[in-house]
Amino acid sequence: MASVVVWRRGAAWLRSYSGNRDGPGVPRGRGCAGCREVVPTCERYAVRRLPFGRLEDGDVAFFERLMPGRVVTGQEEVKPFNVDWLKSVRGCSQLVLKPQTTAEVSQVLRYCHEKNLAVTPQGGNTGLVGGSVPVFDEIILSTALMNQIISFDRVSGILVCQAGCVLERLNEYLEEQGFIMPLDLGAKGSCHIGGNVATNAGGLRLLRYGSLRGTVLGLEVVLADGSALDCLTSLRKDNTGYDLKQLFIGSEGTLGFITAVSILCPQKPKAVNVAFLGCQSFAKVLETFTTCRAMLGEILSAYEFMDEKCMQLVERHLKLSSPVADSPFYVLIETSGSNSTHDEEKLNNFLEQAMASGLVTDGTVATDDKKIKVLWSLRERITEALTHEGYVYKYDISLPVGKLYDLVTDVRARLGHSAKNVVGYGHLGDGNLHLNITAESYSHSLLDAIEPFVYEWTARCSGSISAEHGLGFKKKQFIQYSKPHEAVVLMQQFKAMLDPKGILNPYKMLPSAPERSMC
Amino acid sequence: MASVVVWRRGAAWLRSYSGNRDGPGVPRGRGCAGCREVVPTCERYAVRRLPFGRLEDGDVAFFERLMPGRVVTGQEEVKPFNVDWLKSVRGCSQLVLKPQTTAEVSQVLRYCHEKNLAVTPQGGNTGLVGGSVPVFDEIILSTALMNQIISFDRVSGILVCQAGCVLERLNEYLEEQGFIMPLDLGAKGSCHIGGNVATNAGGLRLLRYGSLRGTVLGLEVVLADGSALDCLTSLRKDNTGYDLKQLFIGSEGTLGFITAVSILCPQKPKAVNVAFLGCQSFAKVLETFTTCRAMLGEILSAYEFMDEKCMQLVERHLKLSSPVADSPFYVLIETSGSNSTHDEEKLNNFLEQAMASGLVTDGTVATDDKKIKVLWSLRERITEALTHEGYVYKYDISLPVGKLYDLVTDVRARLGHSAKNVVGYGHLGDGNLHLNITAESYSHSLLDAIEPFVYEWTARCSGSISAEHGLGFKKKQFIQYSKPHEAVVLMQQFKAMLDPKGILNPYKMLPSAPERSMC
Repeated sequence: MASVVVWRRGAAWLRSYSGNRDGPGVPRGRGCAGCREVVPTCERYAVRRLPFGRLEDGDVAFFERLMPGRVVTGQEEVKPFNVDWLKSVRGCSQLVLKPQTTAEVSQVLRYCHEKNLAVTPQGGNTGLVGGSVPVFDEIILSTALMNQIISFDRVSGILVCQAGCVLERLNEYLEEQGFIMPLDLGAKGSCHIGGNVATNAGGLRLLRYGSLRGTVLGLEVVLADGSALDCLTSLRKDNTGYDLKQLFIGSEGTLGFITAVSILCPQKPKAVNVAFLGCQSFAKVLETFTTCRAMLGEILSAYEFMDEKCMQLVERHLKLSSPVADSPFYVLIETSGSNSTHDEEKLNNFLEQAMASGLVTDGTVATDDKKIKVLWSLRERITEALTHEGYVYKYDISLPVGKLYDLVTDVRARLGHSAKNVVGYGHLGDGNLHLNITAESYSHSLLDAIEPFVYEWTARCSGSISAEHGLGFKKKQFIQYSKPHEAVVLMQQFKAMLDPKGILNPYKMLPSAPERSMC
Repeated sequence: MASVVVWRRGAAWLRSYSGNRDGPGVPRGRGCAGCREVVPTCERYAVRRLPFGRLEDGDVAFFERLMPGRVVTGQEEVKPFNVDWLKSVRGCSQLVLKPQTTAEVSQVLRYCHEKNLAVTPQGGNTGLVGGSVPVFDEIILSTALMNQIISFDRVSGILVCQAGCVLERLNEYLEEQGFIMPLDLGAKGSCHIGGNVATNAGGLRLLRYGSLRGTVLGLEVVLADGSALDCLTSLRKDNTGYDLKQLFIGSEGTLGFITAVSILCPQKPKAVNVAFLGCQSFAKVLETFTTCRAMLGEILSAYEFMDEKCMQLVERHLKLSSPVADSPFYVLIETSGSNSTHDEEKLNNFLEQAMASGLVTDGTVATDDKKIKVLWSLRERITEALTHEGYVYKYDISLPVGKLYDLVTDVRARLGHSAKNVVGYGHLGDGNLHLNITAESYSHSLLDAIEPFVYEWTARCSGSISAEHGLGFKKKQFIQYSKPHEAVVLMQQFKAMLDPKGILNPYKMLPSAPERSMC
């Protein structure tokens, strides 16, 4: 994947970041990506600090004894861990802990539980919804030094590793042995597998290899009271009791701290092809999807779409060239298989039919790595192109595929000239739309025209207001648009049961009533 | 698939049953499959009735008003619902309820919750561990009449249906539209999709399409107090809060009653091939798996194995003929793909290499349906052949694939001449071994030589003592061999939270201390 945004190297969140294909969210109110100083979250958002204990010198001394040299306290040193990579939220933590073992995580949480000290788990800190940084003075418990591969079984393809392993490193390790990770993300150069699991990351390979709920086979988790839960099995089948690990997948660090992961890895495909096509309507985009899924079958690994406005933006701002004639919609199809001759034949058969039947009006195919990257960049760099247009309102929505683009059309009609652009693109194969609205600058009245309209529209279609980014801090108040009241109450009961003092990643994921700031 | 066991037609559990490939468990003590009268479970096993309410005339009258004509009370009419299809366990229920709607299920459970009446959810009653029939006088709440397909989206391949739809009927419905269910079981002619989900059924397509934890997209569940939980979304991606549905998948009816299911269905493969091969050692079986996975890649849909003893038994008792020369091990490989020419070419390339490198010494390939069935029957009918050998001790074990057959070898060495046969076969591609031990008749001393040896052996390899059958009533006391104490305690907490009175499928899944019967 092309590198889109490269931050300065150095501290964890400033490392090379290979560009998130789906784009960061942009906060309401003051501050935006790129600002030097980020307004503290507790100041920007009306949120009250919960009555957790406050860090004392004795606490720091305890942690220093527990993990000498792996306790970060200086204000400047802690700063990068307090701010998300979008620079959209900022906490005020004074302490970062870097355990190396599960036993250390246990001891830290047991201590914090006893002392009622709040804790924010942090992996690569690449989240887009403010879930991985503190809101107030929560202790940051980082997986940065938990980066050991524990085992890899070449017969079964099962990898077991600590939670702090960087996704890209794991993929490189596996590729040497003919395997790949079952997930791929723009943030792969920084994100940790533990964070991926904690946020149930989706990404680019979901269409082919399914979600982490199917590929994660086991987890080791430390609970809020410091007790370790060892469900780190490496079995494809295990029906002995409730599948506890599922509760921690996608819980965004609010129910436990994931220390190790067991995951089923697919083989590295021997052949990859990419086709880039123009379609005259969204109906044809859908029909093309149905046709290609039938004809490409088991080798289809991505079906992405973008509208003409997206293409205009990447052409204008990034000087990329469209490889096909101007069309209302574009489709990117990727195949991954074990035999290049077979795959190309399947792809050609499909393309001939798609052209002959008028589903597709123009298209190009790439079979070598370089050209594949050029085609992918048209889709991947939409996010970057959008940032050149001013302020961007970003939404990450799941919808029934048939209705995916209706939301874009309806928002466009609703906003009229008050928005500069209303564009739609995304993982059509997964029913995942990225709706982006741009304006010269932030406007509260425009935001009011968008929200809750977009959430209500999504709710009417039984869609999800967060397909893959999670709720974190920024979206937790909107959960009711995608989950019934009874489900939210049940979630709160799970939280209360597993973390009765609420010390794990407080202020995240589950909604709270709006309150005045007491920061 | 070949029909293995055909019961008399008529009552629910006596319907045509297309043979469970993996074989039923056989209970300790008195009674066995085929006996006319089954000893009541509460008599056979030392178990005490919990202090639930007892059914009164007023209760029956209430249910009759709620669902007239769908309340079964006569002793003979209720009997088939009281006994599992193995005829190995028997409850003493006096009442079967057949709701048609979620609202009715809600009303039933609300009433039972208030009156402290215990309830056993029941689907097709094809379970193998005594999970789907009452132990005492629990009310049987059947999904038999909840058999409506709610929707099918041909673009996304997502099916939404009521819990009582029979798996085979769903598959037939989908095949007409070019899709299939992502799971397939021997019991497909009787089992209900709700029961499949409640037991997290594995089966024959898991290697290719993954587990239900990945393919089930949404559930509607009625909780113990009668409140309905609507998580029936049809989205491939939804990261808004904890994934509550996962807790109900595989919970064997102990946490809630599943009323509807949303499931992602793959396309129907256009080409299917089966190869049947002989291998000279288990090491070569493993190496053949690695090789074929690399060369067949995305079209590999099953990798099954059986040892020479299994082959001898199907030849002797069922008069089947081995299509290949005598070998210590046999492998069945199935491919499913979208292009028959490509698939056959891949398969032939693999077979040439496997033969040339000595991994495989003999083999045959079938491409037409009839011959494919003949080859599958060698593997599918092992269970049936074993029943001709006398008493069968059956174990359904998950292990790291490399150690899969070591358990068979060790058990064989341990038992020596005290066992007639010790055989191993199963879903090697999923790490799922079916270990079967036969003797002329049941012997407690032989059982003592097998258990807990097999469970301890499995636990030492971090395996699962129930790969796909669940724990139900019969295996609940063995959970600690596959789950740590902390996990079992957590499960008990979930149970207490969701079903504080414990009315849902009591005496199942979670362990209890052995007590004297008060039946």
